[in-house]
Amino acid sequence: MKKPSSAVRGLYVLCDDDPRWSLDPARQARAALAGGASMLQLRAKRATDAQALAWAESIRALAQAHGALFFVNDRFDLALAAGADGVHLGQDDLAPACVPASARERLLVGRSTHTLEQVRAARGEPVDYIAFGPIFGTTSKESAYDALGLDALAEVVRIAAPRPVVAIGGIDASRAGDVVRAGAAAVCVISAVAGARDPEGAARALVGIVAGRGA
Amino acid sequence: MKKPSSAVRGLYVLCDDDPRWSLDPARQARAALAGGASMLQLRAKRATDAQALAWAESIRALAQAHGALFFVNDRFDLALAAGADGVHLGQDDLAPACVPASARERLLVGRSTHTLEQVRAARGEPVDYIAFGPIFGTTSKESAYDALGLDALAEVVRIAAPRPVVAIGGIDASRAGDVVRAGAAAVCVISAVAGARDPEGAARALVGIVAGRGA
Repeated sequence: MKKPSSAVRGLYVLCDDDPRWSLDPARQARAALAGGASMLQLRAKRATDAQALAWAESIRALAQAHGALFFVNDRFDLALAAGADGVHLGQDDLAPACVPASARERLLVGRSTHTLEQVRAARGEPVDYIAFGPIFGTTSKESAYDALGLDALAEVVRIAAPRPVVAIGGIDASRAGDVVRAGAAAVCVISAVAGARDPEGAARALVGIVAGRGA
Repeated sequence: MKKPSSAVRGLYVLCDDDPRWSLDPARQARAALAGGASMLQLRAKRATDAQALAWAESIRALAQAHGALFFVNDRFDLALAAGADGVHLGQDDLAPACVPASARERLLVGRSTHTLEQVRAARGEPVDYIAFGPIFGTTSKESAYDALGLDALAEVVRIAAPRPVVAIGGIDASRAGDVVRAGAAAVCVISAVAGARDPEGAARALVGIVAGRGA
């Protein structure tokens, strides 16, 4: 059954197959969940579909056991095949309107935005959350966009309402508190967990901050 | 409405975004249809999803106008989004059983096989045709498999029945007649059309041979 968009909250950990990370996506997910992450996303840009599906099925089972939401990046076919909770669509991916109604009945749809104009466009799309970023400078992804800052994030939270906003880009423990105070429903990280010496501990610290228990 | 698998026949032209070809996939499709191709497949390995979808929609409209079948390689999300007739799944893609019933109601599903063992496995999968190859040596795709030959093709046609078999790999005008005589329902080509100086003429010649009007 499709989860409510109110479940979009807390720490959202992106698990990807970038060879820079010492853990594969499924092991990143395991560490993130052990640390208390409430949302996960698989981003498999290099794998075969068969490998991506194997990771997706494994992460879906882990997420389910922890009561966390699981999204697949880019591809609703993989999301459906793995029984994920949702699909996350970037600006270069299929548009949310291209996801057929039969798939939208089962999947939450997230959408990346990088400008206020894209946020306004996303309000007219069938999306369950709006991701906005990069808030700060980031090294995890090649980005054609400049850092947008906390004021822009607060503005986006206002115009996206009632849709939850996921903040992404350069967020670490020193900045997660400000991001939550700007109104983000969830804080998305990649390198702050995957690149940490202790991914589980890093996730736990971020979860505490996002929940207002620290920093 | 889903087309019958009996529509799997004739010349099947794979349109891909390999930079070797002088025409983009949509223009390859146009030439192939002008030459009489009855099936097309989009294989966009390098494009963004947005570009792949644009090509898919354009090829779908062209195919429809010509009464030809249109398949998308690998991804049933793109196939559904573009209103294609089917999806073609390789051995490293999602397995046919991973395509949800709601998608299978709309899409024909083709499956690549490269060994008799894979053909036998495909008989137990929800597939509408079985592609087998490479029949001959091929330069269009990196293949981990040796050329399989016409005797193996005839054997596959026998064990795949009643499912139609699509032969692929190194097939050109000099060999298409033998492939049809071995029992293939359709003859799939890439470079024989995309790499031809006159793609439309090359398609027309192949269509004639496949229909038993030449060579």
